[in-house]
Amino acid sequence: MHIPELRNIVIIGAGNVATNLALALKDKGEKIIQVYSRTEKSAKTLADIISSSYTDDLKKINMNSDLYIISVPDSAIIPVLKHLSLKNKFIVHTCGSMDMDILKHASSNYGVFYPLQTFSRNRKADFTETPVCIEANNIAYQEALMNLAKLLSDKVYIINSGKRKILHLAAVFACNFPNYMYRIAEKITENNDIPFDILRPLIKETTGKIMTNSPSGVQTGPASRKDTDTIEKHIDMLSEYPDFKQIYELITRNILNDK
Amino acid sequence: MHIPELRNIVIIGAGNVATNLALALKDKGEKIIQVYSRTEKSAKTLADIISSSYTDDLKKINMNSDLYIISVPDSAIIPVLKHLSLKNKFIVHTCGSMDMDILKHASSNYGVFYPLQTFSRNRKADFTETPVCIEANNIAYQEALMNLAKLLSDKVYIINSGKRKILHLAAVFACNFPNYMYRIAEKITENNDIPFDILRPLIKETTGKIMTNSPSGVQTGPASRKDTDTIEKHIDMLSEYPDFKQIYELITRNILNDK
Repeated sequence: MHIPELRNIVIIGAGNVATNLALALKDKGEKIIQVYSRTEKSAKTLADIISSSYTDDLKKINMNSDLYIISVPDSAIIPVLKHLSLKNKFIVHTCGSMDMDILKHASSNYGVFYPLQTFSRNRKADFTETPVCIEANNIAYQEALMNLAKLLSDKVYIINSGKRKILHLAAVFACNFPNYMYRIAEKITENNDIPFDILRPLIKETTGKIMTNSPSGVQTGPASRKDTDTIEKHIDMLSEYPDFKQIYELITRNILNDK
Repeated sequence: MHIPELRNIVIIGAGNVATNLALALKDKGEKIIQVYSRTEKSAKTLADIISSSYTDDLKKINMNSDLYIISVPDSAIIPVLKHLSLKNKFIVHTCGSMDMDILKHASSNYGVFYPLQTFSRNRKADFTETPVCIEANNIAYQEALMNLAKLLSDKVYIINSGKRKILHLAAVFACNFPNYMYRIAEKITENNDIPFDILRPLIKETTGKIMTNSPSGVQTGPASRKDTDTIEKHIDMLSEYPDFKQIYELITRNILNDK
């Protein structure tokens, strides 16, 4: 089997994921020949960092690349694809919630490169520790993508579209919702002139426990120990925050009923 | 002002907080002369680790101690106090949600030593990094407690009972509820034969961001970017988990409406 080499890369998108991925690729010596973004400014910003060319015109996408990575917001993928006809060039998207097959009209060789991480443009993620979920529509390109993924990360998984979507859903519970819980804690403390910083060691230790334990084994708090007196006091204290009160009541009820 | 020295300590309780606190005190050379627990076995287990005597009889509490630390479940504090008459011996509790004044019938000198952390008996917490919130009903003992707290932790705060209760409520959002979100993620992945471990780097990075950022500034995910297509897909996928679906919908609605 001939495994294609993915030497020249075009990145379509310049957001959080595209930026972190481009930086990681460049760090490993990969050649990014072009960045596309809908806005010239975003394209130029990323292109300048990684020393590539850039465009804001999909008609000017370089056609001599080995790999096209689409990393735009989910809702922009289909509109972008309408303007791309890559024949047999290898194209992947980086999205958790979209089928691989949405790419099939753009090329005969396609796949997914989904880094399971929360990225910010202003914070360089440790890609080595980032799980990367890959799939491709044929074995040769799956191997090629595997080689590329392994260059970047120690944790590469072959995951089909169905399981990837489940992971993406689980990630909302593992990342986005905990962060919103932190926001609530921040609002409650700051409204009472208490610095949020006092809660950071608690947040750190809560996550520290999870790194080596199952969350089921380390649940603590009033609901976990069926301490209804404290729960009632908390609900009283939340009377001025009806939204937070509703969240408190719902999650508490779930913890109380949890086996 | 004469600041009392707190040399000999009796610990009433042998649970997660009592155990971690006793270990930290012993590490710093404090003398724990007795451990009380309702069950002899628990009392002995902790007493053996820290080389102290123990009892399961409140009538046999050693009356020659400088400090009595009550660290029992919230609901057990009042029943325990009924059996304690310490005159002017200094007594504190370690509870986030209880007024300091509940101790006033047990002694004329009382206070609170509240470590803001999630403790497990089988995991030794880093007490140096644990914020400790103290208060006392007089300045001399407040200073004495401050000295003791500073021996254990780099982060000591004088916090009154009202603010401490708010912190305790905020801690539920900062610790217990995120852990329950992890449990949901664990159930969803494991029900689909995906190892929960694949989510750990994401959890670590989510918390890593919070250590140097405000949670308001680093919210990500479908709700944060108003991606209603993905939200609808997720809600569909949760049809077999009605409880998780309800939680997903409520938190998503709050993030969508968040300013």
